[in-house]
Amino acid sequence: MTAEERSSLEAYLKARKEIVDEALDRYLPGEGTIPPVIFQSIRYSVFAGGKRIRPILCIAAAEASGGLLEVVLPAACALELIHTYSLIHDDLPAMDDDEYRRGKLTNHRVFGEDIAILAGDALLTEAFHLLSGKDLADRVPAARILTVINEISEAAGFFGMVGGQVLDVESEGKTVDLTALNHIHSRKTGAMIRAAVREGGILAGADERRLQALSEYGSSLGLAFQIADDILDVEGDRELLGKKTGADVARRKAAFPALVGLDASKKKARELVEKALEAIASFDGKADPLRWIAEFVVERKT
Amino acid sequence: MTAEERSSLEAYLKARKEIVDEALDRYLPGEGTIPPVIFQSIRYSVFAGGKRIRPILCIAAAEASGGLLEVVLPAACALELIHTYSLIHDDLPAMDDDEYRRGKLTNHRVFGEDIAILAGDALLTEAFHLLSGKDLADRVPAARILTVINEISEAAGFFGMVGGQVLDVESEGKTVDLTALNHIHSRKTGAMIRAAVREGGILAGADERRLQALSEYGSSLGLAFQIADDILDVEGDRELLGKKTGADVARRKAAFPALVGLDASKKKARELVEKALEAIASFDGKADPLRWIAEFVVERKT
Repeated sequence: MTAEERSSLEAYLKARKEIVDEALDRYLPGEGTIPPVIFQSIRYSVFAGGKRIRPILCIAAAEASGGLLEVVLPAACALELIHTYSLIHDDLPAMDDDEYRRGKLTNHRVFGEDIAILAGDALLTEAFHLLSGKDLADRVPAARILTVINEISEAAGFFGMVGGQVLDVESEGKTVDLTALNHIHSRKTGAMIRAAVREGGILAGADERRLQALSEYGSSLGLAFQIADDILDVEGDRELLGKKTGADVARRKAAFPALVGLDASKKKARELVEKALEAIASFDGKADPLRWIAEFVVERKT
Repeated sequence: MTAEERSSLEAYLKARKEIVDEALDRYLPGEGTIPPVIFQSIRYSVFAGGKRIRPILCIAAAEASGGLLEVVLPAACALELIHTYSLIHDDLPAMDDDEYRRGKLTNHRVFGEDIAILAGDALLTEAFHLLSGKDLADRVPAARILTVINEISEAAGFFGMVGGQVLDVESEGKTVDLTALNHIHSRKTGAMIRAAVREGGILAGADERRLQALSEYGSSLGLAFQIADDILDVEGDRELLGKKTGADVARRKAAFPALVGLDASKKKARELVEKALEAIASFDGKADPLRWIAEFVVERKT
């Protein structure tokens, strides 16, 4: 990545993140809404400093397909609500039992387990409320929105993210081979990353050939993203990450570095980025942000 | 309710319940699907002997509006998936900490807390997958389905069921007045019962006037249903219910009998049933099942 590309990427990410943050703030009820505790809990985690990778991927895919940011914004925000719910539930004592995330106490440590479970439930539900709401319905044909809801709910459900989390929980303390690890990753993280990219394309009215390219980009990127996460868990800066590193090893969780080593993990992540770039090689300059993000995913420090 | 009406009601409920059960079995992946534990956990709770009141209300409202059972069946099943998820999460140690439901161990007592949380998450997600899926989209205009998804997600979310559960959790051990109790009930149970009835009407293409009548029927019935539940908790048969009675009092939970007494609670439930019947008084004989169900709700023993 050249210095110029890096600077363009940073400006792109910053601008899109601000728009997503502002929209999330607008879509979520204020902390004074009855009962306040659930809205405080929801806002605590939604505004805990996430990078908004999924919404930005959705926006970038839409823009790469000639769509408008404003049109896909509610759908982009819905992806972040689903991501946030998954983090809150994953951190629970019955799951990963994490104390910190992004340098802040986890949701249940602040609001209690009951409210954390309910905040997650409410965020997941609200994602579908946003996807089926007026903002999107006024601008996109209903049939296209239904397709998006169907794909997102598949990627988030038992065949996608939730199923992946179950496999991950089950893998703790067990020996997992590379095929099994790829399977866990593709469901737990990959499915939603791929859905985020496809969703942007679908809402922008991309044709089947373009959607296929976006799917391939998303699949490769999703796996690269998870491998990069595994690498950060080994050699990341605890201060920058705002959470404990070495957690995968300590918990004997399935992870790439433990299985194939750090160097091979980095090589694999790099190969996947190349594969993602290759998938959208025929796209014009409007797809440059998708290209920058692919580089960013493996170079990021947090 | 005459003996003839009762017999018609029983035949109606039995036939509809069988169709819903069969459809749920068809829609849910088998227990051998990877990872098996999540599908076992989901099926354990979905097929734990529920009365299928919400799906049957949705079907009855559709039939009363000239719609076909087959058309609304996926939506009816989605309501039951959402209901089941809410029961699994409500029973968790961090919430009501219940050991039994319908005479069987609660989900987390069999599968562990982690799987129970994930099973609930998956059921909620799958409900939206079913609502946005081919079965419904092939038979109902997409815009109408989007409206249904929007109303259900509102009724299930922070302004509906989840918000009501938060209020309920917060009310434990506190003095709650009748206004507050009505507010808790209308969000926790009422919103989804009302949504179930409206949804049947919307999918069947009911006009605004008819939808308004169905809404009033649903609102009154929802509150009557919850009061009847509170009454059963006091004087119900533990064997028939398959769970502990007296739980509300033991937990100092907000409930009608404790607040206004048993007789006044029964009178209130009866009044609400009359109000529900009044709302659909102008409907023809196709609405008879809705009338029978209203009677059933306060007369039921489980």
